[in-house]
Amino acid sequence: MATLREISKKIGISIATISRVLNGADNVSEETRKKVLKALKEYDYQPPQVAKRKLHHLIGILVPTLWGNHYNLIAEGIETELTANGYDSFLSSTSQLINKEKEILEQFFSRRVDGIIICTTKNDDEHIEKLIKTAIPVVAVDRKDSNIKVDSVGIDNYQSAYNGIKYLYKMGHRKILFVQASRNTYSTYEREQAVKDFAKRKNLELTVLEGNFEFEGGYYPIKEYLEKHGKNFTAIFFSNDQNALGGMRALYESGLSIPDDVSVIGFDDDRYSKFLYPPLTTIKQPRFEMGEMAAKLIIERIERKGSKVKRRIILPTELIKRSSVKQI
Amino acid sequence: MATLREISKKIGISIATISRVLNGADNVSEETRKKVLKALKEYDYQPPQVAKRKLHHLIGILVPTLWGNHYNLIAEGIETELTANGYDSFLSSTSQLINKEKEILEQFFSRRVDGIIICTTKNDDEHIEKLIKTAIPVVAVDRKDSNIKVDSVGIDNYQSAYNGIKYLYKMGHRKILFVQASRNTYSTYEREQAVKDFAKRKNLELTVLEGNFEFEGGYYPIKEYLEKHGKNFTAIFFSNDQNALGGMRALYESGLSIPDDVSVIGFDDDRYSKFLYPPLTTIKQPRFEMGEMAAKLIIERIERKGSKVKRRIILPTELIKRSSVKQI
Repeated sequence: MATLREISKKIGISIATISRVLNGADNVSEETRKKVLKALKEYDYQPPQVAKRKLHHLIGILVPTLWGNHYNLIAEGIETELTANGYDSFLSSTSQLINKEKEILEQFFSRRVDGIIICTTKNDDEHIEKLIKTAIPVVAVDRKDSNIKVDSVGIDNYQSAYNGIKYLYKMGHRKILFVQASRNTYSTYEREQAVKDFAKRKNLELTVLEGNFEFEGGYYPIKEYLEKHGKNFTAIFFSNDQNALGGMRALYESGLSIPDDVSVIGFDDDRYSKFLYPPLTTIKQPRFEMGEMAAKLIIERIERKGSKVKRRIILPTELIKRSSVKQI
Repeated sequence: MATLREISKKIGISIATISRVLNGADNVSEETRKKVLKALKEYDYQPPQVAKRKLHHLIGILVPTLWGNHYNLIAEGIETELTANGYDSFLSSTSQLINKEKEILEQFFSRRVDGIIICTTKNDDEHIEKLIKTAIPVVAVDRKDSNIKVDSVGIDNYQSAYNGIKYLYKMGHRKILFVQASRNTYSTYEREQAVKDFAKRKNLELTVLEGNFEFEGGYYPIKEYLEKHGKNFTAIFFSNDQNALGGMRALYESGLSIPDDVSVIGFDDDRYSKFLYPPLTTIKQPRFEMGEMAAKLIIERIERKGSKVKRRIILPTELIKRSSVKQI
């Protein structure tokens, strides 16, 4: 990338003339115009930023994926709040390529966003660090950040899961399976820790099965467990509603009924969860509201309202009692 | 908005000096620099576009919503293909506001997109007409356009639903319920027509229930029907997998078993469908591939490769036979 000055030297045409071409002025010969345009392209000339704080009313939103029920709902919440405040958004998903996150962030800069909302559960803080240094406002959603270096919105995964296992305990369950998902994701890691801590305290028989956040991540672990050990438990705590749905199929295929033979609790309250058979007891995560809150925060930062102190905002979850857990 | 030339005249500083400031050159006094920056801001100077057909490698994507399982998967397909070809995308959802579609399209223009992919099932062609006149390439996904005024990608909803009801017929079913969704959406309208046409031809007992594309849009119609008429049918054709999931709960709540008492078929092949109990027989709609194809088309148009003739591309659907339909 060359400056106008450098290009001017190289092609022997004055900066004033080049500027006239750039501005589409008439008083330049066609030959000169062509020569200048060719040189601008050849030397990769990029028009510079003018004023530092001119608002473009544009926010970049970075999500790991559009699949599933989580990030698309957060994104809807963000977009709704941004639109209501006259901001556009620029949504990108990193799901398809490794290192795409970095590329997308660079694109956000070149497209001149006023701020970035980054939704990711990865613990790697490298990108956030870089963002903070650029002085563009950043809000993180659903992301662990112990040192609160950036504004963030999330839930208390530990306390929420603790409430879930406590409920199973209250309903009389002492032999419980927990289906976890990727331990690289801090949210599921914290859910697992809470369940383990409670089980230890109350001396419960807890078995942790390796699953994942997808539908099959509940089906296969339960199916394999039942084949090996039979039904030696009374309740299952699934780390999200998706693997609960899959796990429920495995239970039915083994001739077990829910909740008469096995009680089941999920996490998230996906849209289908209340239409499952039986309607799924679960812990509701306020995704849409998390998105709205993230948008509010980024607008405050951009418009320099409110405090300069970074905030971590924790929204409440709710135990939704339906029919999949039975008192025994 | 003023040109450099006009600003130069007004503040009595040469274009060359202004250009040096714009380029961040060192050989400008601090006083001059400040004066220039102030003037650029005051007269709202915008760096001009260099060449008219300069590609920004940016595509606007318009979806009605990010909820559910349909448009987010199409968007993933679009993004994957665009990324592989060095294009960025700008995704906006119209779900929250009426008339937002128009606003978003205007923003796409002001953000200088090279092309627009519009995903909507509405029959109203007003916006498309406007877009065509602007000479920006447009590709429509999942949209009825009888006159092929614009490149489009979709499936044959009529033939796909016809294959579905034909399969139920082959499996011995003669008394069938069809749960439809909004008739304003051409895709569900065509599915309903196909089912009705086949039923008439084969003299089947067909009852059409009013539902919608959501989970509750299958649950309530089936629940109410069973309460009024009891089980006087052997199979249900749901217009999508979401209302099938809800309808299955209604069947189970009435003590009916699937497929022993009632056979069930859906439409879409959502990600959870094979993890339902029993795994759902359905008609797979290739959403991700529809997105990929739309991206391919828009890139061809933008880069002026391929034919100038508009194309309607129909991708194949597939009947996925699982365990929810029984031969009787």
